Amino acid sequence: MTNNSQVIPKLLVHGGAGEWGTKDHNQAVNGIREATAVGWQVLMDGGSALDAVEQAVIVLEDNPVFDAGVGSYLNDKGEVEMDALIADGQTLKFGAVAAVQHVRHPISLARLVMTRTDNCFFVAEGADQLAAELGMPLIPNLELMTDLELSVFRRKHAEAEKLGTVGAVALDKTGRLAAATSTGGMPFKKKGRVGDSPIFGAGGYANEYGAASGTGRGEDLMRLLLCKYVV
Amino acid sequence: MTNNSQVIPKLLVHGGAGEWGTKDHNQAVNGIREATAVGWQVLMDGGSALDAVEQAVIVLEDNPVFDAGVGSYLNDKGEVEMDALIADGQTLKFGAVAAVQHVRHPISLARLVMTRTDNCFFVAEGADQLAAELGMPLIPNLELMTDLELSVFRRKHAEAEKLGTVGAVALDKTGRLAAATSTGGMPFKKKGRVGDSPIFGAGGYANEYGAASGTGRGEDLMRLLLCKYVV
Repeated sequence: MTNNSQVIPKLLVHGGAGEWGTKDHNQAVNGIREATAVGWQVLMDGGSALDAVEQAVIVLEDNPVFDAGVGSYLNDKGEVEMDALIADGQTLKFGAVAAVQHVRHPISLARLVMTRTDNCFFVAEGADQLAAELGMPLIPNLELMTDLELSVFRRKHAEAEKLGTVGAVALDKTGRLAAATSTGGMPFKKKGRVGDSPIFGAGGYANEYGAASGTGRGEDLMRLLLCKYVV
Repeated sequence: MTNNSQVIPKLLVHGGAGEWGTKDHNQAVNGIREATAVGWQVLMDGGSALDAVEQAVIVLEDNPVFDAGVGSYLNDKGEVEMDALIADGQTLKFGAVAAVQHVRHPISLARLVMTRTDNCFFVAEGADQLAAELGMPLIPNLELMTDLELSVFRRKHAEAEKLGTVGAVALDKTGRLAAATSTGGMPFKKKGRVGDSPIFGAGGYANEYGAASGTGRGEDLMRLLLCKYVV
């Protein structure tokens, strides 16, 4: 699948499982449209599937309505801890991060893990330190918190179960596939808890034949290695 | 496979891939024998496969010749960061921890994650905090370091590539399968780097038909989800 003019690009973007309230639902649909438009433009310009899914997910991480990047749920200690995975179907390579606290775009850090290190997966403080070494600006954890999530934390009650993990899969003009997933995890999750999202094969997967990005209760997706299973 | 008298128990214990020096090799073989004897006694007494693999791996974590628990390689910051996974084939449940720094037996913390929480995977500081909450004693990171690993770190050179991840798989008298894997990771690994060991399907896997525990270059095992693949 390398003939440059043969492949019709494809892009799918999701904003996570869970029950959305009416107001949130409209904001979420608009957010998905915006992210899809950005990713689609990448593909139309002849960009790679990897660039498309990364750019689409960046838009969603920046959108506070989704549980990824800014607007992530807080953990039981009142901190944001984010997980992300990006997978390149052409090379079967991936990069992933978990429990990162000081980067604005975990999906971009996951990509740097894939492209700039000999490793695949970094967690917690070491992942944030790697981000700094690779030139990503570190930001205060508080900058990732919205008023809504702060109030949810203070009331110890999430009204709508806005799971809201985000993700995207893409097929580019040259036939390459990629997947990306990014999340802030569950509300009030215990500090250090990692779900399926950064696990290659569970929260996302891509090979030369297919690509998948998962959302749902991470513990179940991990046991089944769902994204690997469906591809 | 639940008829109590039908199943002949099985136990396999490994001390990791890599090149062992002659002296280390003898110590390692003795260590494996000791761990196997402990796990085998559990099975002979009618204990569960889960107990057998946990007890066998505890013996290896306590043995400084292996790269797990005491004697783990130090990371690039001069700290021990350990990863472990335990998997119950009967229930397809697992518990895992990564980048823990203050528990003597990461495999036992992984088991507590499986049995005492609603989650599967905890990392870094949050994993150590969970250990304390669940009643495990926290120890200084330095207590996990041997003179040998300290000198390796100071010389910035590991003579033998003692990968030395440890693991065990067992089948008990009632036909239940379990797998366990524990590691200190690669020498001088970047802080926060996590390999295959704590990843369900990559560093270990068990279902009702088989069980596997992996060792090798974690980045490759993760991409292939090797333990899931072979079971």
